Amino acid sequence: MEIVLLGTGAATPTLHRRPTSTAVILNGEISLFDCGEGTQLQLLKAKLRPGKLARIFISHLHGDHFNGLIGLLTSLQLGGREKVLHLYGPEGTKDYLAFMQNLTGFRFDYILAVSEFDGAAEEIIWEFDACTVTARPLQHRIFTAGFRFEEKPGLGKFDSEKAAKLGIPPGPLRSHLQNGKSIELPDGRRIEPVEVVGPPRPGKKVAICLDTQPCENAVKLARDVDLLIHEGTFEHARVKLAGETGHSTVVQAAEIAKNAGVQRLIITHISARYREEEAVALAEQACAVFTRAVIGRDLMRIVV
Amino acid sequence: MEIVLLGTGAATPTLHRRPTSTAVILNGEISLFDCGEGTQLQLLKAKLRPGKLARIFISHLHGDHFNGLIGLLTSLQLGGREKVLHLYGPEGTKDYLAFMQNLTGFRFDYILAVSEFDGAAEEIIWEFDACTVTARPLQHRIFTAGFRFEEKPGLGKFDSEKAAKLGIPPGPLRSHLQNGKSIELPDGRRIEPVEVVGPPRPGKKVAICLDTQPCENAVKLARDVDLLIHEGTFEHARVKLAGETGHSTVVQAAEIAKNAGVQRLIITHISARYREEEAVALAEQACAVFTRAVIGRDLMRIVV
Repeated sequence: MEIVLLGTGAATPTLHRRPTSTAVILNGEISLFDCGEGTQLQLLKAKLRPGKLARIFISHLHGDHFNGLIGLLTSLQLGGREKVLHLYGPEGTKDYLAFMQNLTGFRFDYILAVSEFDGAAEEIIWEFDACTVTARPLQHRIFTAGFRFEEKPGLGKFDSEKAAKLGIPPGPLRSHLQNGKSIELPDGRRIEPVEVVGPPRPGKKVAICLDTQPCENAVKLARDVDLLIHEGTFEHARVKLAGETGHSTVVQAAEIAKNAGVQRLIITHISARYREEEAVALAEQACAVFTRAVIGRDLMRIVV
Repeated sequence: MEIVLLGTGAATPTLHRRPTSTAVILNGEISLFDCGEGTQLQLLKAKLRPGKLARIFISHLHGDHFNGLIGLLTSLQLGGREKVLHLYGPEGTKDYLAFMQNLTGFRFDYILAVSEFDGAAEEIIWEFDACTVTARPLQHRIFTAGFRFEEKPGLGKFDSEKAAKLGIPPGPLRSHLQNGKSIELPDGRRIEPVEVVGPPRPGKKVAICLDTQPCENAVKLARDVDLLIHEGTFEHARVKLAGETGHSTVVQAAEIAKNAGVQRLIITHISARYREEEAVALAEQACAVFTRAVIGRDLMRIVV
């Protein structure tokens, strides 16, 4: 699984931090989390082909998280997209798309399958071929969802040596076992998968939590993930401002990472008030709490 | 007067051509024409301070001409803008802003003075301190306005030598004459401005015509301007496609420039189908009709 940070800025973009967007690439298929202004160009810069886009999740309807949506959807149409695109967004997403289509007279020839969600359910799980995505409400000024992206467990390792010893011929019988089905050999012996197949390889897990104050649901989403992407809009001296604006400091992001037992933390949604070189000081604050923390940069790629 | 091309692309942005936006800078004050996605970043790249923005004109409500508006307006608010911002856009502009504010819960503390216009009037003229802006309907798939930006004529040249000969003392009497008022000298002689002040210096003139098929109103707007910025979405071999989509070819743009007697032509709104290096071939086509034509580039600055 590969993650590309397309935009690591906050409400006001800067020349080195674009508005929020994160691409998660699994089996060549892109899941996009948030779509700030200019995301379509960041995809181009990252050499991520828009045709590989399978689904888009919008965390909340603040402009810096979705102002790039309509441009991206339009460019997909102009690029000749035919296959369905799934869009998951808060209540209001459908209204927004209907309003914009009416205003501009734009038509989509591909199917844009929009699913809205709200804070009514404590947890929503969407299941796809190769992954599941879980959403939980975070704590921001308006309804905002955090996400957990889980690769489905892989097939267990097949023990060819043991299979040979048991007299299982190469071919379909071995495939059956690999896929979790028991078989019967010509001599009548019954073989269970567990005899020749190791435990399923756990899938990689990523959590994406922004915008939010520190909250229990961020910890739940991030529990034991390989990578947590959490907002840290401010340095810790501005913890009061962070609270007032529904954001976290870099130290609070690190505390969430620590409490959730994550492998690595990337802090994003960095306020425009910090110059590029100030990221070092922000990282130092976070690392004092959780050592495997880094401050995200636009177009940073992470393999998990 | 200075013009900066912030975006010279068409419907689909590319890495070398952003969506449409043009800044006209006069006396340090910015007038913005169209505001495609990412315009606020292009302003930053061009080192044009958003605080200098006085007014924005939107030609038509296709996304590539206004998708960057809401992000720019929001960033002005977050940047602490206090002074009024004037926005001129087609019918629907107010609805759009109201819808977006309601959707995102965003509030503007500065006054956003929105004026809508439609195709009912053949010509609309807005008068400002240092310039006038004229709009006329162009010929596109939806209502679209072209613009003519005229610097007001400057004061005529004061002939100090002649004034001395006539015995006009330096000071307020000379200022009166310079400002077009006649004076009486202590000896009773009456002096008219025309005796010591040359004719008013003509203001510079720029016309901005996109998106449009070749049309009479584009010629009227561009009549005798110092600089015409006209769309030329396609090479001339695609003249049929240009007609079908309500656009012009580079050759048609050059013909408008020739018919209007303009000084210089910059062709913009170049389709994403053309690679960067193909601009040379496009320029050759245009220059065969009108020699002082160039293909615009993002962040190109032109002094007129």
